[in-house]
Amino acid sequence: METTGRDAVKNADASMTIVKDLLVRFLRDETSAAGFSKGVLGLSGGVDSAVTAALTAEALGKENTLGVILPYRTSNPESVEHATIVAAQLGIRTETVDISPMVDAYCEANGLSDAIRRGNVMARMRMIVLYDRSARDKALVIGTSNKSEILLGYGTLHGDLASAINPLGDLYKTQVWHLAGLLKIPDAVVSKAPSADLWAGQTDEAELGFSYRDVDALLYAMVDQRRTDGELTAMGFDEAFIGKVRRLMRENQFKRRPTVIAKVSHRTVNVDFRYVRDWGK
Amino acid sequence: METTGRDAVKNADASMTIVKDLLVRFLRDETSAAGFSKGVLGLSGGVDSAVTAALTAEALGKENTLGVILPYRTSNPESVEHATIVAAQLGIRTETVDISPMVDAYCEANGLSDAIRRGNVMARMRMIVLYDRSARDKALVIGTSNKSEILLGYGTLHGDLASAINPLGDLYKTQVWHLAGLLKIPDAVVSKAPSADLWAGQTDEAELGFSYRDVDALLYAMVDQRRTDGELTAMGFDEAFIGKVRRLMRENQFKRRPTVIAKVSHRTVNVDFRYVRDWGK
Repeated sequence: METTGRDAVKNADASMTIVKDLLVRFLRDETSAAGFSKGVLGLSGGVDSAVTAALTAEALGKENTLGVILPYRTSNPESVEHATIVAAQLGIRTETVDISPMVDAYCEANGLSDAIRRGNVMARMRMIVLYDRSARDKALVIGTSNKSEILLGYGTLHGDLASAINPLGDLYKTQVWHLAGLLKIPDAVVSKAPSADLWAGQTDEAELGFSYRDVDALLYAMVDQRRTDGELTAMGFDEAFIGKVRRLMRENQFKRRPTVIAKVSHRTVNVDFRYVRDWGK
Repeated sequence: METTGRDAVKNADASMTIVKDLLVRFLRDETSAAGFSKGVLGLSGGVDSAVTAALTAEALGKENTLGVILPYRTSNPESVEHATIVAAQLGIRTETVDISPMVDAYCEANGLSDAIRRGNVMARMRMIVLYDRSARDKALVIGTSNKSEILLGYGTLHGDLASAINPLGDLYKTQVWHLAGLLKIPDAVVSKAPSADLWAGQTDEAELGFSYRDVDALLYAMVDQRRTDGELTAMGFDEAFIGKVRRLMRENQFKRRPTVIAKVSHRTVNVDFRYVRDWGK
């Protein structure tokens, strides 16, 4: 009975060429509106960053797209390989920065053994490198998080979730896979199990406890179609699954909103002083 | 003729006791609404973090307030001294983490000599430590940026500008000074030249090219009173000064807004999927 949601996602994919053109235009327009002509992004070897790199190369030109490969000493060597293959296929420039010394300077010195905390430090160290290269090259940091990750809060605030503009943030993971096919991303990259590669053997789906196929169908019905819990249950979604996903969305809401500032004046940043970038132009 | 703006700021300060009570309540309510009971903040030795620490200690209890002292090897030793004095006076716990190994692991390894880029790396390394302690202690990261800094963009995105909740973000620097008096912050902390202490001899006012007294009067007239350039000039503000401040505000607007996500669906994060934290409660 989950077919309704899945069909809807599939129907959305039918117009993937239109979506691709829209995203390329988005990247071109937003980069130029911000006064930039270059983009920089982290190339993880995964499908999200591969698709983002392909879109950015098409939008800004391959010579204006820098992929930074940011391995940690325990990263799967396949990740660097895949990142390199993708960059070579697209003809974009790459730089490799081993984040191990930065991460260890904090984690080892402070005896950090917790995998989640270590993972957050790694994601934020990568952010530091990307934002620094961004300043060096006058290049915008292009985000690679997809809608599934953002809604579920499956990402690190001020880490991989940090970017100036993000072409994939409104596409579910299953849609990114379809887009990857259109963009001729190598099959090895598209078909492998999604992983943040923060520790050995980590996969998104094992950590989350459900597949992207299933959760995307649910998220589409829940968020895009605004179905109530009653409707979702009638559609065949398991009650515990609905509850878990809703809880993840709620608990991670803080990752999607700016700092809450105490309002004491007539005009407060993030409250009534909040303009689009081209304010006053 | 700048007296109008300055008087207005002063009048606002007259109700500083009310403001203090409001900020204490804000910290208590927002921390509890987020499901937390503790706060963690960076104690720089400056007046903003001293005031924030005092407010947090009053709101959450001194035993629930952790001040993290985060010196770099070139930091002014006076900064750590002042941070320690403030913490001792408030009776809050402190931890000191020397960020030099983390910073050098990137900056030295990549030959980073540019002061601004090094400063951004330092600010972001401090964010990493604060957010990690936050995860360890189940404590909210309390922000210390004031309204002058936020409007001028005088801070590092995903660095010192990163926090969950911020009590000072709607108070100009001159108002923070007044509040510091009320909170009995040591005079040595209040009266010294404000500095990000990212390199030797750095002061905010030298780097910005104007004093907080002057710019706060202008910002108050410009932002809070929504004066036009013509009105501002008639009030006695220098045209070049107005232009410079407006340019800083505009150029740094990206620091005050979330990632721009390409809209391709009916409900897009940061566009039409944007709820307050207690959505669905």
